[in-house]
Amino acid sequence: MQDLIGKAKVLVEALPYMRRFLDKTVVVKYGGSALSKAERGTFAVDAVLLKYIGLRPVIVHGGGPQIGATLERLGKRSTFVGGLRVTDDETMEVVEMVLCGKVNREIVAMVQEAGGRAVGLTGNDGNMIRVTQRLEDDRDLGRVGRVVHVDPSPITAVAAAGFVPVIAPIGIDERGVTHNVNADEAAGGVASALRAEKLILLTDVEGVLDAEGCLLPQLSIEQARKHIAEGAIRGGMIPKVACCIAALEAGVASAHIVDGRIEHALLLEIFTDGGVGTLLTR
Amino acid sequence: MQDLIGKAKVLVEALPYMRRFLDKTVVVKYGGSALSKAERGTFAVDAVLLKYIGLRPVIVHGGGPQIGATLERLGKRSTFVGGLRVTDDETMEVVEMVLCGKVNREIVAMVQEAGGRAVGLTGNDGNMIRVTQRLEDDRDLGRVGRVVHVDPSPITAVAAAGFVPVIAPIGIDERGVTHNVNADEAAGGVASALRAEKLILLTDVEGVLDAEGCLLPQLSIEQARKHIAEGAIRGGMIPKVACCIAALEAGVASAHIVDGRIEHALLLEIFTDGGVGTLLTR
Amino acid sequence: MQDLIGKAKVLVEALPYMRRFLDKTVVVKYGGSALSKAERGTFAVDAVLLKYIGLRPVIVHGGGPQIGATLERLGKRSTFVGGLRVTDDETMEVVEMVLCGKVNREIVAMVQEAGGRAVGLTGNDGNMIRVTQRLEDDRDLGRVGRVVHVDPSPITAVAAAGFVPVIAPIGIDERGVTHNVNADEAAGGVASALRAEKLILLTDVEGVLDAEGCLLPQLSIEQARKHIAEGAIRGGMIPKVACCIAALEAGVASAHIVDGRIEHALLLEIFTDGGVGTLLTR
Amino acid sequence: MQDLIGKAKVLVEALPYMRRFLDKTVVVKYGGSALSKAERGTFAVDAVLLKYIGLRPVIVHGGGPQIGATLERLGKRSTFVGGLRVTDDETMEVVEMVLCGKVNREIVAMVQEAGGRAVGLTGNDGNMIRVTQRLEDDRDLGRVGRVVHVDPSPITAVAAAGFVPVIAPIGIDERGVTHNVNADEAAGGVASALRAEKLILLTDVEGVLDAEGCLLPQLSIEQARKHIAEGAIRGGMIPKVACCIAALEAGVASAHIVDGRIEHALLLEIFTDGGVGTLLTR
Amino acid sequence: MQDLIGKAKVLVEALPYMRRFLDKTVVVKYGGSALSKAERGTFAVDAVLLKYIGLRPVIVHGGGPQIGATLERLGKRSTFVGGLRVTDDETMEVVEMVLCGKVNREIVAMVQEAGGRAVGLTGNDGNMIRVTQRLEDDRDLGRVGRVVHVDPSPITAVAAAGFVPVIAPIGIDERGVTHNVNADEAAGGVASALRAEKLILLTDVEGVLDAEGCLLPQLSIEQARKHIAEGAIRGGMIPKVACCIAALEAGVASAHIVDGRIEHALLLEIFTDGGVGTLLTR
Amino acid sequence: MQDLIGKAKVLVEALPYMRRFLDKTVVVKYGGSALSKAERGTFAVDAVLLKYIGLRPVIVHGGGPQIGATLERLGKRSTFVGGLRVTDDETMEVVEMVLCGKVNREIVAMVQEAGGRAVGLTGNDGNMIRVTQRLEDDRDLGRVGRVVHVDPSPITAVAAAGFVPVIAPIGIDERGVTHNVNADEAAGGVASALRAEKLILLTDVEGVLDAEGCLLPQLSIEQARKHIAEGAIRGGMIPKVACCIAALEAGVASAHIVDGRIEHALLLEIFTDGGVGTLLTR
Repeated sequence: MQDLIGKAKVLVEALPYMRRFLDKTVVVKYGGSALSKAERGTFAVDAVLLKYIGLRPVIVHGGGPQIGATLERLGKRSTFVGGLRVTDDETMEVVEMVLCGKVNREIVAMVQEAGGRAVGLTGNDGNMIRVTQRLEDDRDLGRVGRVVHVDPSPITAVAAAGFVPVIAPIGIDERGVTHNVNADEAAGGVASALRAEKLILLTDVEGVLDAEGCLLPQLSIEQARKHIAEGAIRGGMIPKVACCIAALEAGVASAHIVDGRIEHALLLEIFTDGGVGTLLTR
Repeated sequence: MQDLIGKAKVLVEALPYMRRFLDKTVVVKYGGSALSKAERGTFAVDAVLLKYIGLRPVIVHGGGPQIGATLERLGKRSTFVGGLRVTDDETMEVVEMVLCGKVNREIVAMVQEAGGRAVGLTGNDGNMIRVTQRLEDDRDLGRVGRVVHVDPSPITAVAAAGFVPVIAPIGIDERGVTHNVNADEAAGGVASALRAEKLILLTDVEGVLDAEGCLLPQLSIEQARKHIAEGAIRGGMIPKVACCIAALEAGVASAHIVDGRIEHALLLEIFTDGGVGTLLTR
Repeated sequence: MQDLIGKAKVLVEALPYMRRFLDKTVVVKYGGSALSKAERGTFAVDAVLLKYIGLRPVIVHGGGPQIGATLERLGKRSTFVGGLRVTDDETMEVVEMVLCGKVNREIVAMVQEAGGRAVGLTGNDGNMIRVTQRLEDDRDLGRVGRVVHVDPSPITAVAAAGFVPVIAPIGIDERGVTHNVNADEAAGGVASALRAEKLILLTDVEGVLDAEGCLLPQLSIEQARKHIAEGAIRGGMIPKVACCIAALEAGVASAHIVDGRIEHALLLEIFTDGGVGTLLTR
Repeated sequence: MQDLIGKAKVLVEALPYMRRFLDKTVVVKYGGSALSKAERGTFAVDAVLLKYIGLRPVIVHGGGPQIGATLERLGKRSTFVGGLRVTDDETMEVVEMVLCGKVNREIVAMVQEAGGRAVGLTGNDGNMIRVTQRLEDDRDLGRVGRVVHVDPSPITAVAAAGFVPVIAPIGIDERGVTHNVNADEAAGGVASALRAEKLILLTDVEGVLDAEGCLLPQLSIEQARKHIAEGAIRGGMIPKVACCIAALEAGVASAHIVDGRIEHALLLEIFTDGGVGTLLTR
Repeated sequence: MQDLIGKAKVLVEALPYMRRFLDKTVVVKYGGSALSKAERGTFAVDAVLLKYIGLRPVIVHGGGPQIGATLERLGKRSTFVGGLRVTDDETMEVVEMVLCGKVNREIVAMVQEAGGRAVGLTGNDGNMIRVTQRLEDDRDLGRVGRVVHVDPSPITAVAAAGFVPVIAPIGIDERGVTHNVNADEAAGGVASALRAEKLILLTDVEGVLDAEGCLLPQLSIEQARKHIAEGAIRGGMIPKVACCIAALEAGVASAHIVDGRIEHALLLEIFTDGGVGTLLTR
Repeated sequence: MQDLIGKAKVLVEALPYMRRFLDKTVVVKYGGSALSKAERGTFAVDAVLLKYIGLRPVIVHGGGPQIGATLERLGKRSTFVGGLRVTDDETMEVVEMVLCGKVNREIVAMVQEAGGRAVGLTGNDGNMIRVTQRLEDDRDLGRVGRVVHVDPSPITAVAAAGFVPVIAPIGIDERGVTHNVNADEAAGGVASALRAEKLILLTDVEGVLDAEGCLLPQLSIEQARKHIAEGAIRGGMIPKVACCIAALEAGVASAHIVDGRIEHALLLEIFTDGGVGTLLTR
């Protein structure tokens, strides 16, 4: 019995957080990195729990590793420029098949296995994620897009009917041609369009680290920019931080870069004051 | 961190129950017995938590001890017949003042202190709880009523606007005269009128006991009636069980007689399979 | 037949007023003074009639005499400072019991007897009437509050469901502690929060009188302030006039101080051009 | 003042009737007979008053005398068979012009002058009043129709937007050809289609009289049929009574044949127990 | 089969226009001039088709020739001043009878015969078209009105219920007196009040012609004013162009003066880029 | 001009069909067979046109040829039993990638290019298409499913927001495992669940042929069963006809097997009386 009472106390401890985030939208970017089955299950259960206690989770996913594996299987080799995959038409066909036909379907299935109801969407459904072609140092990367506008109406249609939207990061240009989009950037655009309360990027690192490798638990926009300028924030973390800054400036209340390898990282981020990664605020 | 993850796991364990009871109405009878401050706080927090995770709690309260204390202070002595207070006009005036002006206000305050929003109602608001005079062995007990009909519209008006309804057990007869009503019976009538999922009577005993004093964890209507007929269920427990049976027969899915002295008894009843008292079902 | 036609003509005479006040909210302060049964009945019938012809009456009541009588019965003596009852915790318990458990219930019953449907509310339902402690000449009066904000949501929830709201003048401070509030002030706060068309204070005097004791049928805010400054308006009438001025400045279209001893005073105020007391306008 | 209080009492006397008829539809047939200006004004004011106190008046009008006058002015003579005007195409053109372009417009204007908002409709708007050709003793009367169905949607569209519908008794057959329809019959059809509470036929006689010329204040369907069979009800009153019976059988709660020459006849019928003509009930 | 495919292609060609005008309101003035039966049928079918493919047609009609014919039949001769009929009370009675009781009814019937559902309205329904008396060179023309305001609520009530509104050009002054209104002007006022997408005046000429008698396919407000000032636009075309300019200035997106004698003129105007008359824009 | 009028006449000819099918749902199965680009464009434009003129198109697609091509590219050979592909886990992964990530995306893009707004769905979104494993002559075909239930809520959510739903034929069993589903069968299940007006199977044959190879323009359920029993309907046409029969028996009003190779086959089927293939009715 004492054990049960202890569990009840834990529920009660979560009450102030439930109150604070009631009816708030939380956009979660769930990486495509090769997570173990156990870790993945935690993420989906967390998302469903958020929905039940009154938040509105929206999931945007990546899929880099899965795309790479399929291309390899097809004997197709990719070139990378500045960390971005040069994407010719044949590659793009594979990108779409893997993101929309495999990763997206798996995440929909995970959420439903955890007891939620999900609907998968792709950035070209309803011309939702609009992009222009992205150049890197003036080099043509092929069908790689930069998000210019997100129309939230397919997302809200699906969410209003009680489903958790699960979104694949495909963009569409003004001629209707699909492009590969960075998942963090897509998540940031979706969060901005929905005027979300939180944007949470689940990653496979601890959070934003300083030059000494220590976790920075909290950063203002100004501090983040200073760290980037001084070289303290480096490499792949720079675009993630940039996405967060853009979302904050578009009206998202807070952005989080969180270690997705921790069990229930999503719940901890929302239901503890300290959180488990780096919090960025205006 | 492990501690935090442990807490997250507890939240996740509650998910199947949240799913099962989403949007379901739970009518809780909260006794007027002299509970310690701590215990009372637990009850209100539990009720607010239920509301946040999507259930619809409705509270009906008693107030016998508080009525007794005030009558004593006024030098007014009560007679009891079959456990029921003989209620003349002067007594009824005190009953209403204590139930509506003191106990009801305290419970509204408790719920609000716990973070909810509550509105107190009385059985004569909107002519909600209709009664006829109750006789006991043909003896006139004065203004003691038996519930004949409950009009749920004031409750649903208040609940639809996001408030937890807190109801004092006063009834009104066809001439508009108020009567004292047993709180368990009022709660049963409210649960029936709302076609609630659960009726939970919080008491100061372990639950329904058999002739040997052992807790009966589960009872069908038939079993309950047999136990009463055989004298295994006795005394003050008989009318409580009878209220539960009436509610079940009116369409309430389950009825519970629960030990309110246990911390978080209300949560435990809803979020554990075994529960913490006696479950009555059809 | 001629008599019937005469009655029909009276109905028709009321038509322009019905048109003017359709769907308008009227907040009526109904005093707690010891009115005769007949007079009280008139008030409730008038309120119900207003509701049927399309106005939205909201009742706020006092209860000073009833509180005094109960305190006396309990052998508890009150001190008054500047006309305000010094209210210790024990006194406040009685104030709440009498206002919420007796006077409020009686007015709900009166309205229902007259054919309406009413729901009683108290200022702490839904934390509706927020107050700060009120000092009088720097003296601590105990739990006596000054209204700082009224949240109209419990009132509109109840009114939207077709009930006449009947409100007891209890306030709640930021720590959740209840306070005694002057009923005129509570009515003014409610009228302001609802952006009512009219605030009507039913009193036991003819209206606002000038220095010679003659009724002032109409007053602008400016005139009222001048009369107070010159001492023409005196004593207990000053706070009533001040409530009216505050309500007018908060957007209420007109305020009325009316002789509640006249039969059907409420109807006369609304359905005659001259009215029956003092009309205050911006 | 006493006079004012007397007027207030009259308003209060009407309260039980307001309660009884709240939101109920009342279909009034207003004859086209040459009423004096004064009498007509009373009718429109009454209708507007009904609307303000919460009833839903719908007006159906006739226009025989005005049609006759216009035909005469055009030098066109009518033949009558069984009281029905033989209606050739040229006559029908005049019938429509007078009913829709003159009488209907006048009644709309009267209602608006009395402070209401009205919209005129004709039985062929939205194919509302469907008819078949009516034969009298196997004789072809031309474009005279018998109502077979009423589609209430144009009426409810207009009423839902707050207008009083004023309907000209034109019918349309299955080929789309307009026909002249008896106004009492049209009113009965409209009342049946709207499942009205009351059908009131305003006439220029006292009500239904018995063989001795005494007013019959109340009649059941059975009694009415017996009186017709025995010849006690005769002539032009027979089709009026037949309309009432048909409406009652279609679900209208009561039907009234009332002396429209009495001032405020409509109000008296609704706000007095006895009424001022003959009441027919099931 | 090729023929069928050709027809399908025509439907597909219309798709971009359907998309552009979806849910847009189009006010069409349909003249009262003596059109042949065939031509009239085309107009009504076109209007119904517009409704089915998602536009919102509103029809305003004239009736000059029919009024003249009826007046003549009644031996009543009209005087004209500046092209306007001097309208005494007797003439106005005929005007209303013909417009509301004959022309309006015929157009309602035409629309319904073509498969739509229509409701006829007149400018005094709901005091919709408000006018002041119109003077021409300071001469009193009697009951001839100039539109000062249009209240669209009767039109929107009827349209929201799925009916095509058909409006007779009668206006009402502030004393409630009806006046004859120019149909083009009434159509312009209705289009302005509804903030219509298009105002289309169907006429019996080719469109606006220049001084040489050549069709002007498109005109800006400025150009139109210049043509009038220079005398290139003359006579009866001047008030038509003025109506269009007023509507454009009140927010109507485009105005069209179209040759109604062409079969399907209304469809051609909407479904072809060039259109079939003169297009006026801001 | 005559040409334009001719086009307008074609639009008008379509009016009776628009009226008949307004707000009706039409489920179209669009085959995955290797149609030429031109033919595909016709299909999407037709679907968008249907939406604009008020029908509710829902598209279900196949993808056999594309799946075969991708499997071949991956060096994976399929076995077929009774025309069904034996589907192991590896094959199923490819099936999902091709159907959801390629074919579905292409059709969404086609509809949007034609001016509509589309959202792609898959049978496991919201657990929409529920299946059990399908055996063929008791042989295990792996992950090949038979539709047992379709939950239309994801489809209606998307359609209510104005999008054309485009559905990939994936089913989900009770353990959440995805299965390959025949597209005709999926379309039939969707049509039944939506209580569609029409189910249209676009194929690459003329329609249902009799034993002599002549087109059967119309078939009752009974006739169809007789033809199958007698061997007149054979091979791959049998399951198509069976799907149609099942849909008809579930309440779909008519089913059509149509030659998708004809330009605008979808429009012709809906806007001509004869249609262009075989019509099946109850």
